[in-house]
Amino acid sequence: MHDLVIRGGRVITATDDYVADVAVQGERIAAVGEDLRGEEIIDAEGLYVLPGAIDGHVHMRTERAHDVYDDDARTGSIAAAFGGVTTIIDQAQVPLGTTLRKGLEQRLEELRPCLIDYGVHVNLREPSRERAAEIPAIVNMGFPSIKLFMNYDGYALPDAIIFAAMQEVAAANGLAIVHAENREIIDELTRQNLAAGRTGPRWHLSARPGALEGEAIHRALALANVAGARCLIFHVSAAEGVREIRAARTRGQEVYGEVCAHHALLDAAALADPLRGSALVLSPPLRGERDRDALWGGLADHSLDIVSTDHGPRRRARDAAGTLYTPPGTSGIEVRLALIHTYGVTAGRLSLNRWVDVCCSRPAQVHGLHRKGQIRPGFDADLVLFDPQRELTVSAERLHSNIDHSTYEGFALRGFPVSTISRGELIVDHGELLGEAGRGRLLARGYDHATAATPAAAPVSR
Amino acid sequence: MHDLVIRGGRVITATDDYVADVAVQGERIAAVGEDLRGEEIIDAEGLYVLPGAIDGHVHMRTERAHDVYDDDARTGSIAAAFGGVTTIIDQAQVPLGTTLRKGLEQRLEELRPCLIDYGVHVNLREPSRERAAEIPAIVNMGFPSIKLFMNYDGYALPDAIIFAAMQEVAAANGLAIVHAENREIIDELTRQNLAAGRTGPRWHLSARPGALEGEAIHRALALANVAGARCLIFHVSAAEGVREIRAARTRGQEVYGEVCAHHALLDAAALADPLRGSALVLSPPLRGERDRDALWGGLADHSLDIVSTDHGPRRRARDAAGTLYTPPGTSGIEVRLALIHTYGVTAGRLSLNRWVDVCCSRPAQVHGLHRKGQIRPGFDADLVLFDPQRELTVSAERLHSNIDHSTYEGFALRGFPVSTISRGELIVDHGELLGEAGRGRLLARGYDHATAATPAAAPVSR
Amino acid sequence: MHDLVIRGGRVITATDDYVADVAVQGERIAAVGEDLRGEEIIDAEGLYVLPGAIDGHVHMRTERAHDVYDDDARTGSIAAAFGGVTTIIDQAQVPLGTTLRKGLEQRLEELRPCLIDYGVHVNLREPSRERAAEIPAIVNMGFPSIKLFMNYDGYALPDAIIFAAMQEVAAANGLAIVHAENREIIDELTRQNLAAGRTGPRWHLSARPGALEGEAIHRALALANVAGARCLIFHVSAAEGVREIRAARTRGQEVYGEVCAHHALLDAAALADPLRGSALVLSPPLRGERDRDALWGGLADHSLDIVSTDHGPRRRARDAAGTLYTPPGTSGIEVRLALIHTYGVTAGRLSLNRWVDVCCSRPAQVHGLHRKGQIRPGFDADLVLFDPQRELTVSAERLHSNIDHSTYEGFALRGFPVSTISRGELIVDHGELLGEAGRGRLLARGYDHATAATPAAAPVSR
Amino acid sequence: MHDLVIRGGRVITATDDYVADVAVQGERIAAVGEDLRGEEIIDAEGLYVLPGAIDGHVHMRTERAHDVYDDDARTGSIAAAFGGVTTIIDQAQVPLGTTLRKGLEQRLEELRPCLIDYGVHVNLREPSRERAAEIPAIVNMGFPSIKLFMNYDGYALPDAIIFAAMQEVAAANGLAIVHAENREIIDELTRQNLAAGRTGPRWHLSARPGALEGEAIHRALALANVAGARCLIFHVSAAEGVREIRAARTRGQEVYGEVCAHHALLDAAALADPLRGSALVLSPPLRGERDRDALWGGLADHSLDIVSTDHGPRRRARDAAGTLYTPPGTSGIEVRLALIHTYGVTAGRLSLNRWVDVCCSRPAQVHGLHRKGQIRPGFDADLVLFDPQRELTVSAERLHSNIDHSTYEGFALRGFPVSTISRGELIVDHGELLGEAGRGRLLARGYDHATAATPAAAPVSR
Repeated sequence: MHDLVIRGGRVITATDDYVADVAVQGERIAAVGEDLRGEEIIDAEGLYVLPGAIDGHVHMRTERAHDVYDDDARTGSIAAAFGGVTTIIDQAQVPLGTTLRKGLEQRLEELRPCLIDYGVHVNLREPSRERAAEIPAIVNMGFPSIKLFMNYDGYALPDAIIFAAMQEVAAANGLAIVHAENREIIDELTRQNLAAGRTGPRWHLSARPGALEGEAIHRALALANVAGARCLIFHVSAAEGVREIRAARTRGQEVYGEVCAHHALLDAAALADPLRGSALVLSPPLRGERDRDALWGGLADHSLDIVSTDHGPRRRARDAAGTLYTPPGTSGIEVRLALIHTYGVTAGRLSLNRWVDVCCSRPAQVHGLHRKGQIRPGFDADLVLFDPQRELTVSAERLHSNIDHSTYEGFALRGFPVSTISRGELIVDHGELLGEAGRGRLLARGYDHATAATPAAAPVSR
Repeated sequence: MHDLVIRGGRVITATDDYVADVAVQGERIAAVGEDLRGEEIIDAEGLYVLPGAIDGHVHMRTERAHDVYDDDARTGSIAAAFGGVTTIIDQAQVPLGTTLRKGLEQRLEELRPCLIDYGVHVNLREPSRERAAEIPAIVNMGFPSIKLFMNYDGYALPDAIIFAAMQEVAAANGLAIVHAENREIIDELTRQNLAAGRTGPRWHLSARPGALEGEAIHRALALANVAGARCLIFHVSAAEGVREIRAARTRGQEVYGEVCAHHALLDAAALADPLRGSALVLSPPLRGERDRDALWGGLADHSLDIVSTDHGPRRRARDAAGTLYTPPGTSGIEVRLALIHTYGVTAGRLSLNRWVDVCCSRPAQVHGLHRKGQIRPGFDADLVLFDPQRELTVSAERLHSNIDHSTYEGFALRGFPVSTISRGELIVDHGELLGEAGRGRLLARGYDHATAATPAAAPVSR
Repeated sequence: MHDLVIRGGRVITATDDYVADVAVQGERIAAVGEDLRGEEIIDAEGLYVLPGAIDGHVHMRTERAHDVYDDDARTGSIAAAFGGVTTIIDQAQVPLGTTLRKGLEQRLEELRPCLIDYGVHVNLREPSRERAAEIPAIVNMGFPSIKLFMNYDGYALPDAIIFAAMQEVAAANGLAIVHAENREIIDELTRQNLAAGRTGPRWHLSARPGALEGEAIHRALALANVAGARCLIFHVSAAEGVREIRAARTRGQEVYGEVCAHHALLDAAALADPLRGSALVLSPPLRGERDRDALWGGLADHSLDIVSTDHGPRRRARDAAGTLYTPPGTSGIEVRLALIHTYGVTAGRLSLNRWVDVCCSRPAQVHGLHRKGQIRPGFDADLVLFDPQRELTVSAERLHSNIDHSTYEGFALRGFPVSTISRGELIVDHGELLGEAGRGRLLARGYDHATAATPAAAPVSR
Repeated sequence: MHDLVIRGGRVITATDDYVADVAVQGERIAAVGEDLRGEEIIDAEGLYVLPGAIDGHVHMRTERAHDVYDDDARTGSIAAAFGGVTTIIDQAQVPLGTTLRKGLEQRLEELRPCLIDYGVHVNLREPSRERAAEIPAIVNMGFPSIKLFMNYDGYALPDAIIFAAMQEVAAANGLAIVHAENREIIDELTRQNLAAGRTGPRWHLSARPGALEGEAIHRALALANVAGARCLIFHVSAAEGVREIRAARTRGQEVYGEVCAHHALLDAAALADPLRGSALVLSPPLRGERDRDALWGGLADHSLDIVSTDHGPRRRARDAAGTLYTPPGTSGIEVRLALIHTYGVTAGRLSLNRWVDVCCSRPAQVHGLHRKGQIRPGFDADLVLFDPQRELTVSAERLHSNIDHSTYEGFALRGFPVSTISRGELIVDHGELLGEAGRGRLLARGYDHATAATPAAAPVSR
């Protein structure tokens, strides 16, 4: 007699698709089988049972470049849970002059109100070898993923420091995460735009051609290759970026690629909207159809690995002249799973299994989460019941973020989570919040144990 | 309380690797979990628990080209079970002038003594469109895999008939299996060899250059492509064959490739052995190191799918002059799983998961076996307990085939099955035969239900 | 003082483009230089001076499959000369039961009235090794190119004979030319079309999918590879064909590809024309835009080598019901050079140099014509003066073939030859025929002397 | 009656190979033909007649990084002429604080003693947009090639300035030449080597892995691509560098690659020689066999374009302790043509035509020399008579550089120039210097006229 049994759902994982009961004992999955008996029963007939979704790229009330995002750990994690997310990984943007450990601890303090489990990437901002030398200790504390920026004042590191940091990451068996943009040339093109009076959102993309993203990614991967570091490229946005990741992978390098939902779904033309366009002045920028095709293609053929949100939205504000505008930042944490189901699976770009893989399973592997992302005895009982038939339209009012608009306002969705279970506890059910903020647990991560699935072959069509 | 619980083994599948109990109820897997309770318990600590191996290419006492193989359904299936095999697929070589149905039924009669479950590929030998038109009925009876020969007198079909048969296969949603060799040119080169007095085993390969295998496979795949048929190439042996399959796959065609153990493990030089060489005069032929590297590489990178044996051995005989020789044919059914573990996994060519995939899981998908090949509730309780530490050397005396030698005589093995469970029944245990010949069941196969795993991504190294 | 000097033209070859005088002494080019002095002077200012064009694929009043083409050696070679062609290569379709030598000699007799120089490909039609064994003698007589058909009743050879013939070609250092189509499957698809009542020109293409051309070409090249024979594929028509030639070339095989003008310029939709469509029921068939793009791309990137015409037109006729129709066959010998200039160079698909290469220089190399195709001292003084500004529209009345229509009726042309010089003799000048039929000379061909240009690099743009 | 006729030589160009007379009138080639008559006759029977070789990368007594090379314009150009070189391109390393024009003029002054014709690349050293803005004027003066360093203190430019300079180059239709190395990471690795006590020549390569050259080249090409500039990568040394150039070229970018003779011929192991190793501490470094194979392969398949020397040798010197050593720098200007003939053509890596192409013709195209590099009427009469049979061994005594050793000491040579003609004047003949220093002329270069050969196809083997 197990504590809880999810009965009769269609269990979908990165590789499987079958009907079974899932039994939970305490916080873990105890069994997957037929006719399992439980003290409590949840009827999942007609629903998909998925591993809890993981969003490996979020910013809960972080400050960055003068922005303070308006979702904090509490509101953001509640929105996440409504969207089927059971784990988020935030970032500690360690201030200059602060040790990585202290910066991490401060950030951990801010994340305590989390409803769901969480991890933290640690961002090396200080361009010094001494600070980089702190990396192994951080990795060994269970924070293996070190974020390195190639762009943004106050964040970008010189290549030599990126390289030295990657060497530290490699020595400690961690993961180098890179925000890859060619800062120097973007700045130069921006300077030229300004000098020529070319200002406004529509010139944003012109200073960030895809060829430069290809350059920055190739450079990051070359450095990681020489350093011997496992490397994840955040928010790949351009066809040239996909090309370089695929090429490095083909040469045998251990490299991963992340796609953010907005790059896969929105076009640069959206910047023209007077009210909403200002929110979409992002780096890397929104691009065109050819690039979006490359991103979906890369996810489908396993050249890219995971879909995240870079969730970090802001409430609308008025500018000096009193005009309402939307500060830069994207929301998405509550709708990602449904968006990728709708525009990935329903649209024929991804298989059902691959959808679960890029949203739920593969992020666990890439981010070193040993007990997440699978529906298998011994794993955390993080589960989502997803109704594939439910149809709705995105609007900020329905969502649970602390913001007054949505990046995906008006997008039609097909399928949505109905219940979210975190370590055996039903925290969201049919639109009702049942879990308590602060119950989320900090996750130790790493690559020392067996976390990786071997690739299976292409499906035999039916 | 389940009927049987395999306790504490290391469950290894094509994608997973974890410690758990596996519970069996009746003939099926009922649950995978922790602390499962069973009437009967098998302690698997320290052992691998694998899905039962599947050998999709065997000949039990079939006549072909004047050969009568010396293992029959009983002896061959017993040898199989000792080697961890729980399903075999034999072939009905339907005689000329006989309907496919009648030929199939005769063959089914001969397979009744099987200890383990079995299926049958149906071989279209008669070069007529009328005979080919019987294919859909056969597919719909649960025999979706139609074998088509491009070589051998009495077996080879003209391309037009192969194409027409593929169209029938496509219409019925079956699988065209092709023995792909360029018969005309092989015959021509053989004729030239004979005319020049170049006879004997060592000239065998010279008449079968790899470029001709590439030709035959490309042709078979082009025909399958135009016909719209799913296609499996049997016993790929040459680098050029791997190249053509990989290229077609990259173009999006649904094509599969099989490797036979002997092509992956033996060199053409073996034909020089006076006593044993005559057994190895095979078509396609044994080749060289470059070809073997291509086969292992193709298995590792998913360009090829499955490893089989083409098991069809013969006892030694004396020729007219009274000299002992070994008639052509390979054994291997009892050692394949261990051979691929030893020379694939231990040698660093395949991962543990991929070993299980090519021997156990992928054959189930490719051959349309819905309830085989996975350790998952609802699937048949076909399980192997494999001791990865056991070391032994192949010799015919230890094996259970009805023959007096072994193709792999003297090969060192690392790891061997200790127990084999077929549909919940322990049929072989620690060297003892417990199951009864004839208990095996004929399997209906097909592609109408969900059988296929979606590919997962490359592993995150530890 | 030279016999003749072409003064001040823009000399364009496969690799050069410069203004110079070209001096002729007797039948040869004596010098290229400045201020050359001649007894006779032709002013070429404003004109291109090209090596005489070569059409390596024509049929002058050949019978084939019940067709008798309506241009004979006299009319066809006159039309050729007006189009800037100074060499043609016809075919000896040696009848069954006749030795290659005798068949060749009969054909040579028929070609005597040629105005320009000519060669002959010898077609092995008889499916016998004995006949194939005559090949080396033919090659050594100066006829190195042996034509082998994979399609057409009475022409197609079994693969074994094609292979044996290629071995003979290889031994004699000749060239195997292949008409590559998969006859068996085309026949099968045609049979199925007929059985289903799908008749008429529009079903012609449906029985000849591009994948089958890819198959036939791959097969031909595999056989040539094993035989060790240099190989030219005639009239490549499908993207799949280009793909296979490019792949073989990349693997280092010595293979060449020919494009016929109609495949590069006409669409399968043209078959719908009631009067003209019947002329275009060709094998290989006219195809679609994707295929034409592949042909032009293959010519541009050197995956394909030469452009020919397969010139073999027929006059209009009346069918049994008295309706006028156009029997199958294409004209083109008089307009090819201008067509490729217009739709290749002017349309931006080929450079000026590459146009000259595929029409004039490369055919000389591929067909073993040692003294043709270059403007260089010692080479035959075969020269065309081409006015790149002249504009005209193709119509049968303006042309010199013995037919009453043109395959390219209504095509706009930009650029046309104004004078044609053959071995130093001005044979066509400003629309006037000056040469005498019968002056053409039979050319000995072969590969024993230095004929090949080494590839130069990509151009440095200006 | 021409001024001079080279009679009966074997004229070899990038695309041709035939016996002819070459007539010279004044400084130009007047005609190529048979039986040309001249006031003066040079008998070239048995010799190759080549276009004068061009060395596009030399340093005659330049200072760079504290080195003063020991060949000056006079001695270096005399050595060049003995080696069949008729044009060199030196570099103006414009000092900081000096306008490009002034720096160029100073350098031109120093080059006046040249025996042969010369050009100058202008090096932008000052990292300022203002200095970069001077580029168009320099290009328009006939100096289209702007050298940009990514490495070396006092030479390396920030990426933004490289990019801005490339934009200026693009606007003026010039050529950006890049010394591509990843300075930051090389410095970091060097720092780490030093910190770990790893000093000496053998650690030189360890700080310059090929992957970093791939990185730097990819970055340079990405910047050139965005800027729209034609780009030449100097001294490609690593397989990864060849790979990136080939990839960019395949994507359609106008990029060229140079190989320096020492990278193609010497191994990193040579640094171990106590006396000579110190001369070979070069950047990019000498590497291994895999890299040399990639360089030869890139030249052969047209992924790389030209072979130069980076000639800039120094006489032996004594260090503080009085020990004789060889300061860094390579000689080679006198032996390049013979070395590439010996180790390229004779060794089977390059065809005869390709040898002439990479040493003589292609440099003219890449560097915008309109009247050099071809044997064609109107071109400068720069010609080399090369004896392919002559055998000798490289030793400094036989050579004409102002140094006391040779980079290729002891190398066997097959073939050597016997006579060198510059603009119609015989300046070196059978080991005797006939021309006068200072007769060389400064060459205006550019891309506005027709300079480019279109690629021809692969040769038809004989």
